[in-house]
Amino acid sequence: MEFSEYFPVWDKLTPVQQQMLADNATLRAVPKGTVVHNGSADCIGFLLVRTGQLRVYILSDEGREVTLYRLFPRDLCVMSASCILRGLQYDVTIEAEKDTEFWQIPAQRYKALMEESAPVANYTNEVMTTHFSDVMWLIEQILWKSFDKRLAAFLLEESALEGSPTLKTTHETIGHHLGSPREVVTRMLRYFQDEGLVKLSRGSVTLLDPDRLQALAED
Amino acid sequence: MEFSEYFPVWDKLTPVQQQMLADNATLRAVPKGTVVHNGSADCIGFLLVRTGQLRVYILSDEGREVTLYRLFPRDLCVMSASCILRGLQYDVTIEAEKDTEFWQIPAQRYKALMEESAPVANYTNEVMTTHFSDVMWLIEQILWKSFDKRLAAFLLEESALEGSPTLKTTHETIGHHLGSPREVVTRMLRYFQDEGLVKLSRGSVTLLDPDRLQALAED
Repeated sequence: MEFSEYFPVWDKLTPVQQQMLADNATLRAVPKGTVVHNGSADCIGFLLVRTGQLRVYILSDEGREVTLYRLFPRDLCVMSASCILRGLQYDVTIEAEKDTEFWQIPAQRYKALMEESAPVANYTNEVMTTHFSDVMWLIEQILWKSFDKRLAAFLLEESALEGSPTLKTTHETIGHHLGSPREVVTRMLRYFQDEGLVKLSRGSVTLLDPDRLQALAED
Repeated sequence: MEFSEYFPVWDKLTPVQQQMLADNATLRAVPKGTVVHNGSADCIGFLLVRTGQLRVYILSDEGREVTLYRLFPRDLCVMSASCILRGLQYDVTIEAEKDTEFWQIPAQRYKALMEESAPVANYTNEVMTTHFSDVMWLIEQILWKSFDKRLAAFLLEESALEGSPTLKTTHETIGHHLGSPREVVTRMLRYFQDEGLVKLSRGSVTLLDPDRLQALAED
């Protein structure tokens, strides 16, 4: 079964466990734009991405979306199984950003596997921890420090000064201007790139969507 | 060893695993105010609280502290072992809020145990998930929706109107005024109570620290 190539700890499972997964993982294909999961009440199970791309985001009262992270082929989605993650009551929306195929594993089946397999439990823990870390970073930078706004405003100003959508500058230089470490600049620029706002190349940043950058800067 | 009574999955360990923990868990006592852990570079290991209370918080650039959660006896602290939690690079500070005793387990030892014991891995995962969920809720309500400010302002206004620090009101009524579900009001009032801002009783809320509530409302 092809699933085995996408599930990182497959080789650490017993034949019985492998068979259980093979019997219970259902391959689904959804078109771009499909809302796969919506809120904590919804518990469709663990998802393992085969092709395409899923976007996990939260929605504010005012309808502003903040992308938390994206899931690519071989990524496991745990938020769609919130019902079995004791203590998790956090509402996110998961949307297919491209035509996407994923295996869906019923929450209770996966939970039973986690309970008997340390490799599966640790793998799941690692996925959770990584997402936790990404989300905390993003929320701190965006909601607390408004770094996204400040960076968007800076890029627009520089672009106006240079009369060009392409800025020849390093992340370190941007960091000096904004009083932020280079790593923070790099990470936020990549976030902007994933959101389709800019394009990054060696030694330059190109503004792809000045209107949305302007909206972000004024938000 | 008394440790066994505080570690929830002790009975699910093999004798060898129990011995390893008994040999490696060191009991430490720290006075109130001690900073136990500071930032992601610091990796003192997993902590299991025996007595007292630890507070986990983040610090903004402007020096504002936001309490993420508290750890009480029998609670496991995972953020202090961030070095072995692959993907976790998030900086928190952990401070003893009372005189506190805890067992400290070296990160690598605990990690080895997690890798061979599914019960330990799942227990750790559950702790992580619960904290993740708490933190997301809090950050969303505080940093995004400013619900803490709005609630503080409302309590101060009502108290001024009634000429009393004690408000006879239900969480549901407060929710109606603020356009928020009762559960959100209850959870934020409990957070306020833990922070020493109010005292909750059946059918009433007493303002304990109007100055700090005022500072919060104007923040």
